Amino acid sequence: MIQEITAKQLNAKRFIEDRVREIREAVGDGTAINALSGGVDSSTVTMLGHRALGGRLRSVFIDNAIMREGEPARVQAIFKKLGVTVEIIDARAEFLNALKGVTDPELKREAITQTFYRHVFGRLVRESGSKFLLQGTILTDVDETVAGIKRQHNVFEQLGIDPQTAFGYRILEPLIQLRKDGVRKVGQALGLPAETFKRMPFPGPALSARVIGEATAERIDTVRRATTVLERVLKGVKAFQTMAILHEDRVTGMRDNKRDFGQQIEVRCWDSVDARKAAPTKLPYKTLEKLAKAILSEVPGVVSVTYNIAPKPPSTMEAV
Amino acid sequence: MIQEITAKQLNAKRFIEDRVREIREAVGDGTAINALSGGVDSSTVTMLGHRALGGRLRSVFIDNAIMREGEPARVQAIFKKLGVTVEIIDARAEFLNALKGVTDPELKREAITQTFYRHVFGRLVRESGSKFLLQGTILTDVDETVAGIKRQHNVFEQLGIDPQTAFGYRILEPLIQLRKDGVRKVGQALGLPAETFKRMPFPGPALSARVIGEATAERIDTVRRATTVLERVLKGVKAFQTMAILHEDRVTGMRDNKRDFGQQIEVRCWDSVDARKAAPTKLPYKTLEKLAKAILSEVPGVVSVTYNIAPKPPSTMEAV
Repeated sequence: MIQEITAKQLNAKRFIEDRVREIREAVGDGTAINALSGGVDSSTVTMLGHRALGGRLRSVFIDNAIMREGEPARVQAIFKKLGVTVEIIDARAEFLNALKGVTDPELKREAITQTFYRHVFGRLVRESGSKFLLQGTILTDVDETVAGIKRQHNVFEQLGIDPQTAFGYRILEPLIQLRKDGVRKVGQALGLPAETFKRMPFPGPALSARVIGEATAERIDTVRRATTVLERVLKGVKAFQTMAILHEDRVTGMRDNKRDFGQQIEVRCWDSVDARKAAPTKLPYKTLEKLAKAILSEVPGVVSVTYNIAPKPPSTMEAV
Repeated sequence: MIQEITAKQLNAKRFIEDRVREIREAVGDGTAINALSGGVDSSTVTMLGHRALGGRLRSVFIDNAIMREGEPARVQAIFKKLGVTVEIIDARAEFLNALKGVTDPELKREAITQTFYRHVFGRLVRESGSKFLLQGTILTDVDETVAGIKRQHNVFEQLGIDPQTAFGYRILEPLIQLRKDGVRKVGQALGLPAETFKRMPFPGPALSARVIGEATAERIDTVRRATTVLERVLKGVKAFQTMAILHEDRVTGMRDNKRDFGQQIEVRCWDSVDARKAAPTKLPYKTLEKLAKAILSEVPGVVSVTYNIAPKPPSTMEAV
């Protein structure tokens, strides 16, 4: 049974000292490895691990080809300022290959998870010689899964590490007693910049979840460009989450005064408190016009832009 | 060379007298037939023909399965009030069969045109024994095609009437010197009600053009229901054209608190002067909310509704 520490109970300074000591004791004179996504949890765990182990923690950022524009360099730069070296692993070809021909959203998720754990990160762990994995698991992640040893066993299996040889490997989860608000406090105390906390939630399958149908390199690039435009135009807008979705349906457009088929981008912008219910943000038409114009002129192949007007439920936040 | 009569030059009363006399002289004691769509042109020609020939004109309304809800009965009722009997021909199965497996918009148009002329209306003409076809061709229709005999020859060919046996058949086009505004004047003078002129333009392939992908009976029914809801909710809105489009892409929705795939309806509402350029109508969010709510609750299988925010160009008014 994991003992929860609420954000209210949390003394961030003491928490950091305790976890740093525990990590040092566990790793001894060994080395550790962790995968950084740039999100709050993995960023906080990277800072904690770095404070405990310094150069004996290898932090890798895996470029899976389905990220927002400039994401790997952006995350690397944030940590460089904090004195932490982050290694970018270019695994784009491997992920795109795993997504080839996959149209079902569940199978996309599965392909990405498999490629991440079993292939790319699993290989890094096995080759690194590190026996300690630092993970940003928080209490909310544990709530819905089986706690304890079974869960850790599953992680090794996911990584393609045989339970026999897994002997000696250990997973360290210094944030496991916290929930999101607690992690934020710890992250701030560790010096993480505001943009780490302000970034909107992004789904695990990232931009591949924003492509209806097959997520090819070209189609991911289209939705990535639309996402960049969207985030620029909606910068001042207070919304719970915004997203650009590339449809598979082709619609008619005009190119050089001639009918021609093109692509459609759907924009969703959500007002929500806790993501359980959500309503489309009432963006002024001036903003919608600006948004449509920018997407149509800056994203090649797009001839149509729509704005979601359905609430959740019966819609969901993401399209797939 | 066809001599244009502009709406300004037009004396509707005199025009009607002249055309009625010509139709009578041409048909003599024979019979004529015409296909009524409910649009301004075919409605006006039906009234002219009826005035000239009374019961010797057979007016048919072909139900092609891709019409708005209640359309055949609505048109029939309008003419009944004017003392004109309109025969409804149920050709739904034939049209749906021709649309089976067809996803390309051009091929859909072609399938509908072929089914209409060569099969359904062609068969009616051939079996009716009538040698005179009344058509609502207007000058604008002729502008883009080859005028005169070649054009008439094409009509017979389209109808599956061999040019050899076509000898004796004659096409009467009493509106051919007019453009739309002239036809409206004549139609009003003939007693056609305001709703005939107020109805929004509807594309030739009708609701099959509002279905992305295959236009099955079920999918046409879905977009028909959405169209009914849309026209009801937007009744007071001044717009050039409104439409509900059923997408082929499936999106995630919630049913009984569980994730489930559903369909998406895209709403387009256009402001335009002449259809060459158009902008999305700035509908109040209150209206958009009402619209989304009504579509989501009244149209089975729909979990998502979007509103078009792209102008024409680069978009077009219709989606396919």
